[in-house]
Amino acid sequence: MLTLHHLEYSQSFRILWLLEALHAEYELKLYNRDPETNLAPDDYKALSPLGTAPVITDGDVVLAESNAIIDYILDSYPDSDLNPKAGHKDRARHLFWYHTSPGSLMPLQSIAMVLGLLETRSPWLISALLKAVFGQVRKMFLNPRMETLLGEMEKDLGAQPFFGGDNLTVADITLVYPMYAARDKGIFNNGFANINAWFGRIEDLDSFKSARAKDNRDRIAFRFQN
Amino acid sequence: MLTLHHLEYSQSFRILWLLEALHAEYELKLYNRDPETNLAPDDYKALSPLGTAPVITDGDVVLAESNAIIDYILDSYPDSDLNPKAGHKDRARHLFWYHTSPGSLMPLQSIAMVLGLLETRSPWLISALLKAVFGQVRKMFLNPRMETLLGEMEKDLGAQPFFGGDNLTVADITLVYPMYAARDKGIFNNGFANINAWFGRIEDLDSFKSARAKDNRDRIAFRFQN
Repeated sequence: MLTLHHLEYSQSFRILWLLEALHAEYELKLYNRDPETNLAPDDYKALSPLGTAPVITDGDVVLAESNAIIDYILDSYPDSDLNPKAGHKDRARHLFWYHTSPGSLMPLQSIAMVLGLLETRSPWLISALLKAVFGQVRKMFLNPRMETLLGEMEKDLGAQPFFGGDNLTVADITLVYPMYAARDKGIFNNGFANINAWFGRIEDLDSFKSARAKDNRDRIAFRFQN
Repeated sequence: MLTLHHLEYSQSFRILWLLEALHAEYELKLYNRDPETNLAPDDYKALSPLGTAPVITDGDVVLAESNAIIDYILDSYPDSDLNPKAGHKDRARHLFWYHTSPGSLMPLQSIAMVLGLLETRSPWLISALLKAVFGQVRKMFLNPRMETLLGEMEKDLGAQPFFGGDNLTVADITLVYPMYAARDKGIFNNGFANINAWFGRIEDLDSFKSARAKDNRDRIAFRFQN
């Protein structure tokens, strides 16, 4: 039987939601972050080839990387609506958002996270200088790319209810982590009516509710304490 | 007919190689980077939803994001060996490396690129300070993650000749861009016998040679001039 090794407040929430949406039989193993370092515990890191969440085990297979795990699990559900097939009218849209999550959204968030941590964890004089330097990176590089991406999201979610199109797909499921991380930072507080409606829509789904119940945490995404 | 809009020295080289490996019929449109800004020209940015390369057009479909394009093109070649099917012995390995390229390798490279550009393009006193601060990020965050990832590559390429397993797959094709970018930086100069053998192996392939000929550039990956 497939085992999901779920690290709290991590990207493995996606896989938990996927398995609930598929009504899959699986074993769930929960891991807490180290309270000092916030990192995965040693037994988790030893299991995962890159030391990162999520990771699943299935017989001899040990697999990391969210979208790799999603594709692997979907192999056992070839008729699932979560994966629009070749020729489906929503196929291109679904593929775009499925791969944009790791390919564009999360890298921008990772860069922003590193810069933000450097600013907030440096002594004040260095922090002030870093803020001035990083302000240029945000203005010239990060913000325009993020605005374009969020603009595409808002437009597409105005045309169809889910990132995957007319139905929930694994595009929505893989985007759940970076979208909640962005919402926690207040990015959608002003405007973004269609994106905010999407949050409401997924939160109404039974599969999302049961994943949240099994996760049993106050929020989905990890948040650094400054 | 499908059109590949190929920006020189960009991630769209992957799609060029894929189309050559599939012996596909397609139209190739070449775009040069702006010689001042190094960015894609305005007609390219207008075409691409995120303003990024690669992008393809196919009738009404306009699609960006490398792995989304790869999955979309593979839909027309359901029997291709470039995509090991569900149940194939190399399936999990192939999926891992296919998704690790955008999901782990490229984000680490993007963070390293931003930090490196900030260091080299700042006035010397600020640059010296940034180097001290960023040295900690490299030591604590970037280097351990990159070493783990390269270690997994070296191990897996010692066991089977391609990232995809026994045969070239789209895992190898999507990794081509970040791997050449890493090689250009000298990362594989010492050791990494299996990774270096992989470079030799793909460079011997007819599909790779014809993609390089159509690309007609001195190297694959973009390089900032410091």
